[in-house]
Amino acid sequence: MVAEVIAIGSEMLFADRIDSNSLYTSAQLERFGISLIAKTVVGDDLTMIRKALALALTRADFIFLTGGLGPTEDDLTRQAVSEQLGLELVYHPEIVRQIESRFQSLGRSMPEINRRQGFILETAQALENSEGTAPGQYVQFEGRNIFLLPGPPRELQPMFQKYVIPLIEQLGLRPRSFRYFRIAGLPESRVDSLVAPIYRQYPDIQSTILASPGDIELFFFAENDARLAELAEKVTAELGDNIYATEEISLEAAIARLIKERGVTLSVAESCTGGMVGEWITRTPGSSEFFLGGVVAYSNSLKIDLLGVPPEMLRDQGAVSEEAAKAMADGARRRTGSSYALSITGVAGPGGGSESKPVGTVFIGCSHAGRTIAARFQFPGNREVVRLLSTRAALNLLRKELQMTNVEVRMTNEE
Amino acid sequence: MVAEVIAIGSEMLFADRIDSNSLYTSAQLERFGISLIAKTVVGDDLTMIRKALALALTRADFIFLTGGLGPTEDDLTRQAVSEQLGLELVYHPEIVRQIESRFQSLGRSMPEINRRQGFILETAQALENSEGTAPGQYVQFEGRNIFLLPGPPRELQPMFQKYVIPLIEQLGLRPRSFRYFRIAGLPESRVDSLVAPIYRQYPDIQSTILASPGDIELFFFAENDARLAELAEKVTAELGDNIYATEEISLEAAIARLIKERGVTLSVAESCTGGMVGEWITRTPGSSEFFLGGVVAYSNSLKIDLLGVPPEMLRDQGAVSEEAAKAMADGARRRTGSSYALSITGVAGPGGGSESKPVGTVFIGCSHAGRTIAARFQFPGNREVVRLLSTRAALNLLRKELQMTNVEVRMTNEE
Repeated sequence: MVAEVIAIGSEMLFADRIDSNSLYTSAQLERFGISLIAKTVVGDDLTMIRKALALALTRADFIFLTGGLGPTEDDLTRQAVSEQLGLELVYHPEIVRQIESRFQSLGRSMPEINRRQGFILETAQALENSEGTAPGQYVQFEGRNIFLLPGPPRELQPMFQKYVIPLIEQLGLRPRSFRYFRIAGLPESRVDSLVAPIYRQYPDIQSTILASPGDIELFFFAENDARLAELAEKVTAELGDNIYATEEISLEAAIARLIKERGVTLSVAESCTGGMVGEWITRTPGSSEFFLGGVVAYSNSLKIDLLGVPPEMLRDQGAVSEEAAKAMADGARRRTGSSYALSITGVAGPGGGSESKPVGTVFIGCSHAGRTIAARFQFPGNREVVRLLSTRAALNLLRKELQMTNVEVRMTNEE
Repeated sequence: MVAEVIAIGSEMLFADRIDSNSLYTSAQLERFGISLIAKTVVGDDLTMIRKALALALTRADFIFLTGGLGPTEDDLTRQAVSEQLGLELVYHPEIVRQIESRFQSLGRSMPEINRRQGFILETAQALENSEGTAPGQYVQFEGRNIFLLPGPPRELQPMFQKYVIPLIEQLGLRPRSFRYFRIAGLPESRVDSLVAPIYRQYPDIQSTILASPGDIELFFFAENDARLAELAEKVTAELGDNIYATEEISLEAAIARLIKERGVTLSVAESCTGGMVGEWITRTPGSSEFFLGGVVAYSNSLKIDLLGVPPEMLRDQGAVSEEAAKAMADGARRRTGSSYALSITGVAGPGGGSESKPVGTVFIGCSHAGRTIAARFQFPGNREVVRLLSTRAALNLLRKELQMTNVEVRMTNEE
């Protein structure tokens, strides 16, 4: 089964617009093993919409037309589909009454033009829009399944869950089983070289890797759940504690959860990341429960004055050194009274590199009761990427320290 | 004149892939008054590419096929265009020699399959690729201008500048005159209500507003430069010092330049933004020349211990208050020895709001010699948006303080 998305709206052709409906739709269809074979964006033009639909009808089992269902004369999707399929548009007064009551509930009266949204293709099923006025439509035509959906993602997405997925299931399609892994601390090439020998043994399982710097997602889809379970076990054994989650959760949110479980507090001491670690940690609502704050020690003077790093250490070992990273983490913990502290000092570039510490050299430290460690990293990429990789590596180091503590605690309890 | 982009490559249909070549191409064509009327993404499939091209040939003056020019059997763009237009592919040994020497310069020998990249449509002009092996192609066909360009943006973009734009100019098209403004400190609706009465007087000028939270871009395109100059003068008078740049530069880069010009130093004291201001300021290479660092004072204890905010002030006025913002900025300046300091304290949400200080209440302070100010903001949106708007508002406040200093200095000099 294959699908095609046609996004409609002249504004979608502006230079900065991203067709997020296509991205959403293809991700949803993937679960059912339905592949997207084309996506097209056209303006509010009757002929363009008709031609795109005509082409899609020649090849796609599922066709999603998004946008162009509003009440104005620019909104031409209904008319284009009607003309292309040779199906009449029928006026449904009960749909208009729903739109009217939606306006009333907002304390407004319905403009006359919204009556246009009451026209539904003669053989189509209307799909209620809980977030807006434009109803969606579903029509089967010569073996094709055609959906007309509203353009705003916050309207389309609930409608997709409530109507489109059940309709796909009614056609006898079942969501495939899947397994999902999130991995930190390994580059994409390394993850792939570790797991490719495993998933190549399972040609019946579809594997996808999505990579952003320092954060990898692995998806496995299959009909057969037992086979998936077998593969997942091998992947888990191979990647070990580089897997930080088996659900859709960001690294910073996973760490926030872990910190709350442990009941500890955190501070940071950042140099080359300039505040990025703190910014990421505080993305999670409620982070004030455990995050105290910290010091952005961009200059050496602040490393000395606010973190207590010895000036002679900066002179002898340099600000980018294992010793400085440890001293920064210890200093942050001492100055803030947190139970854990993270530190980062490195050369983000483009300037500042040397032969022994080229651009991309970053030391990351972590301090907690009785233990201070620092690790050296050599990251590839430009300034932006080095800072991003540094932040994710710091969060990942903290995760491993927190998890190790847990192991120790459990071991102690078992003794 | 209208254009169409056809992006080729099965990987482009993955759920997370954004067709950045379409975005780039449409922005470049806009300058010449060429509108994008459709963009399509298709997989590596001969028939799909041919059908998309056939449709584009019925309506577009310019057709850009991007991707599918690699050396493997999946790379079908050359063949699809050849079959659809009925033009032979001709082998060019001199192009293969160029590809060979490219491999040699990287210390490798050219794989045999790369010979495929030496095939050029019989009436086409080959376009050299300085960043990769796949040459581009340009062919005129029945009044259509057809470009075959490589998929990787870092290859496509230089080729676009070096070959595509001169070829467009050879067709007699001239880049339109344009004016560009970047605005901070005003929401999009306010900018539009201020400038719409102006640009409505100029129906011959094309106006575009692009908005991201706290940062607005205004574009004006026209044939007639004198008319543009007239409009630009009125826009400048209306928006005043809310305009922070008339070139493509980010707010943080504009501020870095301004700070360097003034020869001052900067520190920060951040609460609800958790480090975002520092992170943004240090995005600019060389920011270590003026940025000392600062304190992420997420907890009250750090506001007291590291910034010297009086505990009774936090008790009486609260951590989210004008007084606290001023004390934080003064504290950062005192503790770091910087000449300027910025502070942010606010309620980012979703929790923590009260009747007098609802979610979105943010105080931003700025301290420099002899002057400490703080301003109250009430930002709309969720946690992420409030933090983003806070960061941009803080940078904008600093910009205005720096520019005011300049005015004072100039006034003093003129006396």
